Amino acid sequence: MTKYLITGFSGFVSRHFLQFLDKQEEDVAVLGVDLHQPSFDLKSLHHVDCDFERLDLLDEEKMQNVMFQFQPKYILHLAAYSSVSFSWKNPILSFQNNTNIFLNLIEAVRQLRLGTRILSVGSSEEYGDVSERDMPLHEGMPLKPVSPYAVARVSQEMLSKVYAKGFDVDIVITRSFNHVGPGQSDVFVVSSFAKQIVEGSKRGLKEAEIVTGDLSIIRDFTDVRDVVKAYHSLMKKGKCGEIYNVCSGRGTALGDILSLIGNSAGIKVQPRVDPMLLRPQDNRVIVGSNKKIQVTTGWVPEIPLEQSLSDVVVDWRQRLAVVERKG
Amino acid sequence: MTKYLITGFSGFVSRHFLQFLDKQEEDVAVLGVDLHQPSFDLKSLHHVDCDFERLDLLDEEKMQNVMFQFQPKYILHLAAYSSVSFSWKNPILSFQNNTNIFLNLIEAVRQLRLGTRILSVGSSEEYGDVSERDMPLHEGMPLKPVSPYAVARVSQEMLSKVYAKGFDVDIVITRSFNHVGPGQSDVFVVSSFAKQIVEGSKRGLKEAEIVTGDLSIIRDFTDVRDVVKAYHSLMKKGKCGEIYNVCSGRGTALGDILSLIGNSAGIKVQPRVDPMLLRPQDNRVIVGSNKKIQVTTGWVPEIPLEQSLSDVVVDWRQRLAVVERKG
Repeated sequence: MTKYLITGFSGFVSRHFLQFLDKQEEDVAVLGVDLHQPSFDLKSLHHVDCDFERLDLLDEEKMQNVMFQFQPKYILHLAAYSSVSFSWKNPILSFQNNTNIFLNLIEAVRQLRLGTRILSVGSSEEYGDVSERDMPLHEGMPLKPVSPYAVARVSQEMLSKVYAKGFDVDIVITRSFNHVGPGQSDVFVVSSFAKQIVEGSKRGLKEAEIVTGDLSIIRDFTDVRDVVKAYHSLMKKGKCGEIYNVCSGRGTALGDILSLIGNSAGIKVQPRVDPMLLRPQDNRVIVGSNKKIQVTTGWVPEIPLEQSLSDVVVDWRQRLAVVERKG
Repeated sequence: MTKYLITGFSGFVSRHFLQFLDKQEEDVAVLGVDLHQPSFDLKSLHHVDCDFERLDLLDEEKMQNVMFQFQPKYILHLAAYSSVSFSWKNPILSFQNNTNIFLNLIEAVRQLRLGTRILSVGSSEEYGDVSERDMPLHEGMPLKPVSPYAVARVSQEMLSKVYAKGFDVDIVITRSFNHVGPGQSDVFVVSSFAKQIVEGSKRGLKEAEIVTGDLSIIRDFTDVRDVVKAYHSLMKKGKCGEIYNVCSGRGTALGDILSLIGNSAGIKVQPRVDPMLLRPQDNRVIVGSNKKIQVTTGWVPEIPLEQSLSDVVVDWRQRLAVVERKG
């Protein structure tokens, strides 16, 4: 029985990881921990024996008890306050719920001598102040974090390296770029576009006005179902103390994403730029290199962006239909 | 009335800063905060109106109250758990009492809109994994922290930069190298040497065996009385968001320091290397460049090492005499 502990269990990425694990491995036990109850059904899995426990990772003592009881072989550390804008409003909470929770986690593994392999999920935000000439971003570049969130993530990464080298705790580290895929919250840009477009299409519109920020911004999107495969491959084949970008290696302008979603939903899109959504300090272009993870694990992203976006549209049709039935 | 808040008030550096301020400025009010009561006499100052309040900087609410009441123009942030070896034993406590206390402090200044200028004291440990060819260390070099303590300090520095640039909080940053001077605790190497040698001299020995670690190690020592001048000059003339090494720019082998102390105390020193004191992961040579602080503030270290060591010997004679009288 292979035991996985997943933190941030009730989120979007965790659900996809569980579905992947259920197809990929037999005889697997998962303990999910989160501040919030998951909204998905744990019983829908076939091969994964899955349990949930409500846990605040800032509660060192309770966390140590949970870890000691479960004795995980792997930890997939997804728990995070991952919003940059939240971190500008609440820097202390952001720091505690990114860096301190992670330190508590790795310290528990060290003190209990669990020998657990931990996947520390980080963020492309760590690169921070980069220019277009620096693209694609690779793991050896200097980090220049520019938000409280990014600082918290770089701190997490530095702690990972010190624990890996100084304490022999088995930690593999990611810098994950933008995700896209079914189930994502509409606080994220692609999901927000798709939701607005599907709402328009459900009202029978041929043309819909969509509120946007700067559409010339270019980001590197990976389907969440590819992301969870990357995480699984890194847990199996990643090197301790090493950092891996998780990204597609392709840049796409937000304007192109908007058009693709419109095509998929069969609706003409009229963007309306909301000045409140323009973020002047944002980097215009963020694209990563995924060479390192490819070389180490053989992982390559497989789902084309068009497919991801079409699946997101289908997903929003279902989600909004459920809302209507409930309403 | 110029108001200074000093954190880590009860420590070695704070006492020297107060003495400097007392000579340098008129009409000054200082509020010292610390976990522990200071052991020096607040009434011995002539121009500085000095008060103390016991405060745990992890207590956000109480700290905000203290800051709001006092409304400091400057904060000299000396509070730290500055032991590398402690951080290997208690990484969580080390991180909280370096990084989290600092974040609480700057967040209080931001939220209360105090307009305070903060001197964030950091450490040469932040440079971490460097080679002899990299000497002297300068502020533009990449940081490769190798201990939990060093990570905590780099995190503090990254937060300083984000608060300076993103929130317009007025923060000047140091990376401070080794200090030497009267009053230092004997957990530090030079003070420990001096204490052992003075003890031998008091027993009437002509020759004393001194327990040491690796004497070929080279460090950059600055007299604490020069260090506090550097801090004062940075508070007055340092640039917001900028980092400054505080160091002498000279490397001295620990073996040479041992001989100099022996000469000053009039005793021949026989070093006995204790293998427990050898730290295999330590850098052999750490020397900084102080060009940047010189250019910006005009500060230069003035007290020769021989003078510092001779003063340390005198100081230990006094401290041990007091112990004898009390015993």
